[in-house]
Amino acid sequence: MGAGVFITLEGVEGSGKTTHAKILADALRAAGRDVIITHEPGGTRAGQAIRAIFLDPAVSLDLAAELLLVLADRAQHVREKLKPALAAGTIVISDRYADSTVAYQGYARGFDLDFLRELNRLATDGIMPDLTIVLDCRVPTGLARISQRMSGASSPRRPDRFEGEDADFHARVRQGFLEIARDEPGRVRVVDSEQSLERVSAEIRRLVDELLERRCP
Amino acid sequence: MGAGVFITLEGVEGSGKTTHAKILADALRAAGRDVIITHEPGGTRAGQAIRAIFLDPAVSLDLAAELLLVLADRAQHVREKLKPALAAGTIVISDRYADSTVAYQGYARGFDLDFLRELNRLATDGIMPDLTIVLDCRVPTGLARISQRMSGASSPRRPDRFEGEDADFHARVRQGFLEIARDEPGRVRVVDSEQSLERVSAEIRRLVDELLERRCP
Repeated sequence: MGAGVFITLEGVEGSGKTTHAKILADALRAAGRDVIITHEPGGTRAGQAIRAIFLDPAVSLDLAAELLLVLADRAQHVREKLKPALAAGTIVISDRYADSTVAYQGYARGFDLDFLRELNRLATDGIMPDLTIVLDCRVPTGLARISQRMSGASSPRRPDRFEGEDADFHARVRQGFLEIARDEPGRVRVVDSEQSLERVSAEIRRLVDELLERRCP
Repeated sequence: MGAGVFITLEGVEGSGKTTHAKILADALRAAGRDVIITHEPGGTRAGQAIRAIFLDPAVSLDLAAELLLVLADRAQHVREKLKPALAAGTIVISDRYADSTVAYQGYARGFDLDFLRELNRLATDGIMPDLTIVLDCRVPTGLARISQRMSGASSPRRPDRFEGEDADFHARVRQGFLEIARDEPGRVRVVDSEQSLERVSAEIRRLVDELLERRCP
C-alpha cells in the first residue's frame, strides 16, 4: 500500500478520540504533512446510510444485523476511502476501525473472537493500522463526558446504540481494548486519556512521531 | 419454531418468483390458510434502507460490502419478521433467501462457499426453509422478461445491481441454484418456469400441498 501511514484511535465512548484525531491532524498538517481524518461508522456515502439505520429510533436492530452492518460499513470505507488515500501517500487517521468490532461485538456483545477476526479480514481486505492508539479512561469518566456533550447547548442529541448501554457493557468494551493492546503491543499503544488534554495530545504526538521516524528515517 | 411453514422461491432474474409467490399465497388463502409474502432484500424497515443503498446510483458498492449488507438484511428479516410469523403458525413465502447468497455471491461472484454457509448460519440463526422452489429458466428468457418489464408503460425503471450484470454472471447464478438443488434434494425442488404460467403454478401448488400433507397429515 503506497507510502501512506494508517493510524487509528480507539476507546470507549467519551475517551476523546474525535478531539484528539483533530488535534493530531492539525499538528501533522502544521508540520507539512498530507492528512485526512475519517471515522467509522459513516465515513462514506453508503456508510452514512448505514449509520442512519443505527440511529433510526423505529428500528430495533438485531445484534447479528448490527455486526454485519458495522462490517459492511468497514468494507466500503476500506475500498472507497482508505486504500486510495494510503496509495496516494496520505496519513490517514481513523476514529474507530477493526478493533472496535472486536471490543464492542466481541468482548461486550459476546460474538466469537476468532469469527470476528475472520469477518474483519473480509471487511478490511487485510489493511491493518500501522499504529493504533487506545485512549483509555474509566467508564464513569467517559460516560460523564458523553452526558455533558448530550446536554450541551451547542449540539444536544439522543444517545446512540452504544452510548445507551449500561456501565457493565462499557466496562467490557474497555477491557476488550486493553486485551487487544496486550495481544498486539507492537501495533497498539494505550494512552491514559484522563490526563490533561495537553499531556494526552503530547503522548499521541510522540507515538506518531516515533512511527513516522521508523517509516521514513 | 412453532407450527409455521417456511417456503422460499429462488431463481435468476425474470424467473417468475414474485408472480408465483402471489399466485401461491392467493391459492393458500383461498384454502383458508394464514399466509404472508415477504422478500429479500428489503422485507423490513432496516432492509428498505439497505435496499436503497443497492439502488443508489451514486454508490459504487464494494463486493464485500454488498455481501455483508445482504446478510445484515437477512439477519434483521429473520428476527423481525420470519421468526415471529413462524412462531404464530403462519405460512411464510419468501421471495429469495439464503440460497440466493450462495448462488449470487458464491457461484457468480466467487466468494468461498463454505465461508458463505457460515455467514448464512449467523444471518439466519439456523432458520432454513421447509421447502425451496427454484424457478428455473434459461438466462435469455429471464433477461427478456426483465427487459420487457423495465420498458413496460406501467412501471419503467433502471436495472438493479444484478440485472445489470452480463449473461455469463446470470448463467453462473442459474448453475448455482441447480447445484444447490442437487446438494439438497429433500429441501430444494426445481420447477421449469418456461412452461405456461398455469403449469408452473400447478407444479408449485403440488409441491406445497405435499409439504403441508407431510407436516399436518
